Amino acid sequence: MQSFTSLSALFEEQFNKRHFPDEPKNLYDASQYILKIGGKRVRPVAVLMGNELFSDIDPEAYHAANAVELFHNFSLVHDDIMDKAPLRRGVPTVHMNYGESTALLAGDVMLVAAYEYLNKISSSHLHSIMSLFNKTAKEVCEGQQLDMDFEKREQVSLDEYVNMITLKTSVLLAASLQMGAIMGGASIGNREHLFGFGKNLGIAFQVQDDYLDCFGDPEKFGKQIGGDILANKKTFLMIHAMEVANPVQQKELTVLLHSNPDDKVERVLQLFHDCKADAWAASLKEKYYDVAMKHLEDVAVLNSRKEELHKLAQYLLQRDS
Amino acid sequence: MQSFTSLSALFEEQFNKRHFPDEPKNLYDASQYILKIGGKRVRPVAVLMGNELFSDIDPEAYHAANAVELFHNFSLVHDDIMDKAPLRRGVPTVHMNYGESTALLAGDVMLVAAYEYLNKISSSHLHSIMSLFNKTAKEVCEGQQLDMDFEKREQVSLDEYVNMITLKTSVLLAASLQMGAIMGGASIGNREHLFGFGKNLGIAFQVQDDYLDCFGDPEKFGKQIGGDILANKKTFLMIHAMEVANPVQQKELTVLLHSNPDDKVERVLQLFHDCKADAWAASLKEKYYDVAMKHLEDVAVLNSRKEELHKLAQYLLQRDS
Repeated sequence: MQSFTSLSALFEEQFNKRHFPDEPKNLYDASQYILKIGGKRVRPVAVLMGNELFSDIDPEAYHAANAVELFHNFSLVHDDIMDKAPLRRGVPTVHMNYGESTALLAGDVMLVAAYEYLNKISSSHLHSIMSLFNKTAKEVCEGQQLDMDFEKREQVSLDEYVNMITLKTSVLLAASLQMGAIMGGASIGNREHLFGFGKNLGIAFQVQDDYLDCFGDPEKFGKQIGGDILANKKTFLMIHAMEVANPVQQKELTVLLHSNPDDKVERVLQLFHDCKADAWAASLKEKYYDVAMKHLEDVAVLNSRKEELHKLAQYLLQRDS
Repeated sequence: MQSFTSLSALFEEQFNKRHFPDEPKNLYDASQYILKIGGKRVRPVAVLMGNELFSDIDPEAYHAANAVELFHNFSLVHDDIMDKAPLRRGVPTVHMNYGESTALLAGDVMLVAAYEYLNKISSSHLHSIMSLFNKTAKEVCEGQQLDMDFEKREQVSLDEYVNMITLKTSVLLAASLQMGAIMGGASIGNREHLFGFGKNLGIAFQVQDDYLDCFGDPEKFGKQIGGDILANKKTFLMIHAMEVANPVQQKELTVLLHSNPDDKVERVLQLFHDCKADAWAASLKEKYYDVAMKHLEDVAVLNSRKEELHKLAQYLLQRDS
């Protein structure tokens, strides 16, 4: 098994090119733009790692990896339009640079380009990869819809939030690993355990993301602390705090959610701390991490082959061991 | 060969159902909404006709037909967002009813659902159908981008306009027929002639559409006369008039394109008439019709099998013979 870093370099080597025709320039430059601004390429590398867990990497796994990365970026372009986000990875979003209509179309052609890569996969794997890809693509859209629906609601339960996060962010990581497993000839049972590993790892990652938005080191986290609080987002911490707060705290949280005092972030963080939402989030992340690792354990291959996936989990969840 | 009407009924019988899960309700109701408001289903029926030209209809042709109809409606939903269109087929557009973000996502899941239907096609045809579908899908997006690009330009040549129309509207009809031909086991040569038939028929249809917008019977046409003129659209007639007008007429057209007097439609129509753009458009439509029919002639099957496609062309182009 090769490391995430090595596989990432192998992936990038063949991905770092223009994926679209030259004309119409506007359209395809917009699609290429988002691909060039990078990202960690976790999902496509997960395809390669899922494959290599079971056998040597099938050259066709790169087609699936490319499709997954194109799909991921398609979803970012459309999400940014919906969220009216001005920046992505520190630079202007596609719709800010090219206009909303072109960004919408640029997303559309990226989704089609993802299927062009899938169609390079030979017949024996095509149906099962496409089936998983389609299911996942719909789920990611469902997650985005739920996220928007939740913004308009006063209350969201923890279960509902976990379901939304699972659809919006975790299933794509899980499906990427599983596509690799299909390419690697894994049994149904092994594929499912690898999916479970990715899904729970993805949820743990989101718990961490919500936690770091509140209590992270701004320099390491790379985003403004309290961004979710200022946007009145229902996060793991907010949902839990609303559930366990005493009536006085609950009232203060509600008032803060409907107003924008200068010390809003500070006061919400204090309330989170008083409700022990921070400690709870830390233990929730561990819980999902443990479930993820149990699934990895249950994949029936030699433990030594699993080492790099273990390291990937530790890297994503910023763990030392 | 069955008639368009019979095949349309067969298509509708299996298409007239919910194509999406129940939840999230918002999202999938929006996708279902556009499918329910109908349309003539020309493209999916073209898949079935393209198949039956060469052999009995393969039950799998319905998967391709469903995919084509879902794709067509996906493109309508996204185009309506970009064009800020309030109405489609006389009822509010998806984004007017469900909001822009949900309409965007509803389009996305329709495109994925189209690929779900394609993935039901067995291995022997899947790669070639997918390849044609992907190529066409990108071309339709390119056509929409060019249409938007042209709106911002002062001048568009006839060749550029024909290319845009071909991509935006004709290739999908042509590809639908060709997908049917693939299902029917047609030779490459026959597939290409059938594609040529559909492509030229589609262009002729657009020439007619541009003509009827100016000189149609408002009751039969179903739209307001002069809609394109009021929207300052570059149409076949406008482009030709600008090319052949004398300097005085050209100046008046330019002034009218940049102003909105009460009698704008009337005056532009008079100029079109003075430039003989109406007669030119009628003969241009005939030219593309003739090319289409020549391609149909060159398809190597018995003439008697071609009768229904002949009738389809006459129906679409409102010809008596």
